[in-house]
Amino acid sequence: MDKVNLSEKFSLFSEHWTPKIISELNDYQIKIVKLKGDFVWHDHGDTDEFFLVIEGTMFIEFESETMELSQGEMYVVPKGTKHRPYAHEECKVMLIEPSGVVNTGEAESELTASNDVWI
Amino acid sequence: MDKVNLSEKFSLFSEHWTPKIISELNDYQIKIVKLKGDFVWHDHGDTDEFFLVIEGTMFIEFESETMELSQGEMYVVPKGTKHRPYAHEECKVMLIEPSGVVNTGEAESELTASNDVWI
Repeated sequence: MDKVNLSEKFSLFSEHWTPKIISELNDYQIKIVKLKGDFVWHDHGDTDEFFLVIEGTMFIEFESETMELSQGEMYVVPKGTKHRPYAHEECKVMLIEPSGVVNTGEAESELTASNDVWI
Repeated sequence: MDKVNLSEKFSLFSEHWTPKIISELNDYQIKIVKLKGDFVWHDHGDTDEFFLVIEGTMFIEFESETMELSQGEMYVVPKGTKHRPYAHEECKVMLIEPSGVVNTGEAESELTASNDVWI
């Protein structure tokens, strides 16, 4: 029975936009990711997507507005909602989504990451 | 589109052991709860249960060991695993579990709380 320490897990990698799995909840996965710079516009047609900012500030651009999320703030992007995450400075984020979700959703991109890397 | 600020949500109630729903992720609910004192032994036969400590320290007693979880630490209690949460001092926790889960699982208790209160 091993608990997960978020700071310890974040210290194990430095690259941006590559979610790492840290735990599972039924058929969902808990992931952490470091964000910096611009991500691509995308959506997930089949699932909502949970964001919780652990450290720093990120933005989620939607078609009608842009949301700023800082440490201790969370948002669940509804399924099928086009969004574009970005961060001016490095931001540490927890994500939760069903197992197998691809980070870029329906969009193909050089930012598309492997979706089965544990850390 | 409203983000959720955890500190703000925690400031809206003071009672212990009564989870409040703050968001939904597909058919899961994101809840926050303040813990202090002893909870009852229970398990959830149908689902894992996610704990993330937002502030303070809590303990989860299992049949074979006791886990200490402090700020920035998380654990997913596997389905069917008997456990007893407790906290010496008030501890603020985020929980995630499928909609409709009862806090005391299979155990009936005066600590059984309503499972549909939003905050």
